[in-house]
Amino acid sequence: MLQSLEQLYQKALNDIKGEKGVITINIGGIPKTSRSNDIIGNCVQEWIPQWLEDNGLKLETNPSSQAFPDFTANINGKKYDMEIKCWNYNNNPAFDISNFDGFYREIYSSPAKLYAKYLIFGYVPTTHGFKIENIYLKNLWEITGKASKYPIGLQVKQGRPFAIRPISFHKPNHKAFAGIDEFVNAMYEARKLFKLENMIEPDAWLEHVISKISDNQQRQEGL
Amino acid sequence: MLQSLEQLYQKALNDIKGEKGVITINIGGIPKTSRSNDIIGNCVQEWIPQWLEDNGLKLETNPSSQAFPDFTANINGKKYDMEIKCWNYNNNPAFDISNFDGFYREIYSSPAKLYAKYLIFGYVPTTHGFKIENIYLKNLWEITGKASKYPIGLQVKQGRPFAIRPISFHKPNHKAFAGIDEFVNAMYEARKLFKLENMIEPDAWLEHVISKISDNQQRQEGL
Repeated sequence: MLQSLEQLYQKALNDIKGEKGVITINIGGIPKTSRSNDIIGNCVQEWIPQWLEDNGLKLETNPSSQAFPDFTANINGKKYDMEIKCWNYNNNPAFDISNFDGFYREIYSSPAKLYAKYLIFGYVPTTHGFKIENIYLKNLWEITGKASKYPIGLQVKQGRPFAIRPISFHKPNHKAFAGIDEFVNAMYEARKLFKLENMIEPDAWLEHVISKISDNQQRQEGL
Repeated sequence: MLQSLEQLYQKALNDIKGEKGVITINIGGIPKTSRSNDIIGNCVQEWIPQWLEDNGLKLETNPSSQAFPDFTANINGKKYDMEIKCWNYNNNPAFDISNFDGFYREIYSSPAKLYAKYLIFGYVPTTHGFKIENIYLKNLWEITGKASKYPIGLQVKQGRPFAIRPISFHKPNHKAFAGIDEFVNAMYEARKLFKLENMIEPDAWLEHVISKISDNQQRQEGL
């Protein structure tokens, strides 16, 4: 029985890292192997929660597959918001961490979401499927950082911030944020760059989020 | 050996309609069934071309999974551009026919793409997978029509036409375009509604596309 997040991560490394994956589509009794990269990520995101449940973890899965977080894991009485992410390890990670607008609002109403854990799989496509090349367990601020054009990695479409994107956190010399405060400040700075209607004003947002983080840290330290 | 598009469609109806589908993800020897709707469409789009090749069809698959058409089928010496589309039959079809900008340009440079054949699968999710409820073989203008707000079904994002969307062509009283000319004219009328930079001017576009269609019709009729 898994007793901690660290044990969960060790089990993933032991059991899954280096393993091969195959996706089979069977219609009317005729099986075919998927050769497309498009669905590997989605499939791994479905397989992992089932595998965690096999290993005794109690999960509450988000009914909407688009919503954050993917699921909440109950480990030894503690609850962790968890996101599963995957990317083709031959490239730089380019998965969407979240939609900018939605995440900005989400952090305001539930700052605890900042502490979500990211279980991330780097796969390499093979002739008949894929291989799990590496696995990471990270905090949000450990996979994000300052980008050349913006205070945080951002996909911008037609002048609007669209999605928050990770840095190349798997490379040795990556420049991730030093902690949660730097991440929050980068979101604030990014928000100020864009005129967005019906979006909480940046100063009110920052003050509220920082006070909640501070409350949480005091609670963690038993103050 | 399939001798015509009509035979291909009949074989799909005979062999696939009413059949059940299951998607299995196996990592490190541990198989799990996919319970998500997100990947059914992608998987059917991969399974069908392989099944067509089993049945002796020669296909040229598009190396880019995002590009149009999905593949070109060689039947009895004739070539057909083909697109595979899927949707959850419990809802109205909402798959993207194409990105508006890209398709507008594509039709201008290769008007023959207007004659692509759409092989469309309506599936119903089940506890462990899905069931192929119905199958359609359609021309572009048979799955598109006038929408309430625009001359053609359009998804519009931030004032720009984004994707071309189908009508509910599976319902008895649908209002599809009467033919290719109506489709082309609706694209022209839709184009005129939006100021789009670096996009072929609508009048030049219409004149060019109509002359190409007319050439093609004369060729078909042996004039």
